[in-house]
This record gives sequence, structure tokens and C-alpha cells, in this order.
Amino acid sequence: MLEFLHQNIPITQVLGVEVVSARAGEAILSAPLEANVNHYDTVFGGSASSLAILAAWSVIHVRLQEYQTDTRLIIQKSTMEYQKPITADFTAIGRLSDVTKWPGFVKTLDRRGRARISANSILLCQDTQVARFQGDFVAMRLPEKGAK
Amino acid sequence: MLEFLHQNIPITQVLGVEVVSARAGEAILSAPLEANVNHYDTVFGGSASSLAILAAWSVIHVRLQEYQTDTRLIIQKSTMEYQKPITADFTAIGRLSDVTKWPGFVKTLDRRGRARISANSILLCQDTQVARFQGDFVAMRLPEKGAK
Repeated sequence: MLEFLHQNIPITQVLGVEVVSARAGEAILSAPLEANVNHYDTVFGGSASSLAILAAWSVIHVRLQEYQTDTRLIIQKSTMEYQKPITADFTAIGRLSDVTKWPGFVKTLDRRGRARISANSILLCQDTQVARFQGDFVAMRLPEKGAK
Repeated sequence: MLEFLHQNIPITQVLGVEVVSARAGEAILSAPLEANVNHYDTVFGGSASSLAILAAWSVIHVRLQEYQTDTRLIIQKSTMEYQKPITADFTAIGRLSDVTKWPGFVKTLDRRGRARISANSILLCQDTQVARFQGDFVAMRLPEKGAK
């Protein structure tokens, strides 16, 4: 998963994104303060937002890989609350917002080639929750390779 | 303004952020596709979100500089809609969400040392609106330098 992120979204290398774990239940990513610092010695909001998006995206991506790989997964809408300043290295934990919606999502994707699902992330810094994020994602089935 | 962003939020250099203009009415920032690309050859959502935050933050920052400089300005909450894939270099235009709220914001900041205001950004790519962002920001007056 780390190699996937660093190769496919090069900016994640610069953000210093590391994958702590990426499973169907949750994806845990981390990033250092240093690469993402602002002039208040806290994490820049855009970097916090980026890690939150990646964690939420990753948990859907991992689940989709178990199902089928040729899917395009993009973010459609997001909300984020920056609850506390992020003063050190930080972690994002991404999970599906409602795991009971997964079977319907997969069924719709299979039938219509396109389906929506929500995932959320919480951001932690030194064991304290510092932000929360919710994102709506759209998955689109891509044509099979070699198909015309 | 460009020097300020690049020096104070170093990740903006890597994102390739440029300041087209930064005035009290609006702040216009741009960034290239290349530094922010994902595996779909479009802009990574976290990069789009970062430029949107910076444009909204900048327009409040520029206004605050006209008023007083020793203010800490942080994002508290944001929503973003990713309306279309961003397939080329892109621009964010940040404005206050409601300019008539500025005088009350400044008065509250002056009286209580802390006040909230909203700003929004639209993202454009090849003359088409591709995303919109709204952010709630909090300004906090910092102690004067040398004060104890």
C-alpha cells in the first residue's frame, strides 16, 4: 500500500506519508510534523486534510481490491473539523462510515458500473483526537484491459 | 505573499503554489498538475483541498494585515465539493463568504481577542469550475512583541 501511494500519488512522498496498516477494517497512515509544518509550528491544514483523505480513500481501496481491481475511486465531497492544533507527528485512521452499506455498494457498482460510499477519518496526535473528516467517494468500474 | 507562503508553509513550495494576486477583495493562487498528480492523471484531492484552504486563508490574512499584523489565523472547519476531475494546472480564487461580516469580525477580534469568519474558494481548471470550498476560520490576537 505504501509503495502504491508513493508511486501513484508522488506528493505523498513529500508529505512523508507512511502506512501503519491497511486492512479492510481500517487504514492507518502517519505523517511527520516537519514536512507539513506551518508558521505556527503546527501542521498545515492542507496536509492534515490530505492525510485524512488518503486514510479514508485507502480503506475503500483495500476493500475494492479484494473484490475487483479495475475501479477508479474518487472523492466527491468532504467535511473536516480541525479540533485542535496538531503540534507533532500525526496519524489518520480511516474507516467506512457505515460498514452495513458495503454489500449494497458492491452490488450497485457491479450492476451499474458506478456507486457511492462514505468513509471517515479521525486524526490523532500524541494520543489525542485533533481532527475528524468525512468523505463521500464514487467508485467507477473501468473497462477490462484489452476490451474494446 | 508568495514569499510568505513559501517561507512559512514549506510544503507550498513542493505543491508548486504561485500567487497570481492577493488583495483584500480576493486572493488568486495557482498550482501545476505535475506536482500534484495522482494515478488517474488528475489532481490529488488533498492538493486541491490545500490550494483551496490557502486561497481562503490568504484573503483573510491580507485583510488582517491592513488592520493589524499580530494575529494567528487558523482553519476550524471546512467543506469541499470536488465537482469535476482536475486534468491540468489549476487556480483557486478565495473570497470572504460575506463581506458585510468583516466590520463585526474586526470589532469582536479587537474586543475579545478572538473572532470567527468564513471564506470560500472556487477552483478553476481551463476556465471551468472544478471544485468549491467553504472554510470557517478563527483569528486570535497575539500578545504584542515585547509585552509580558
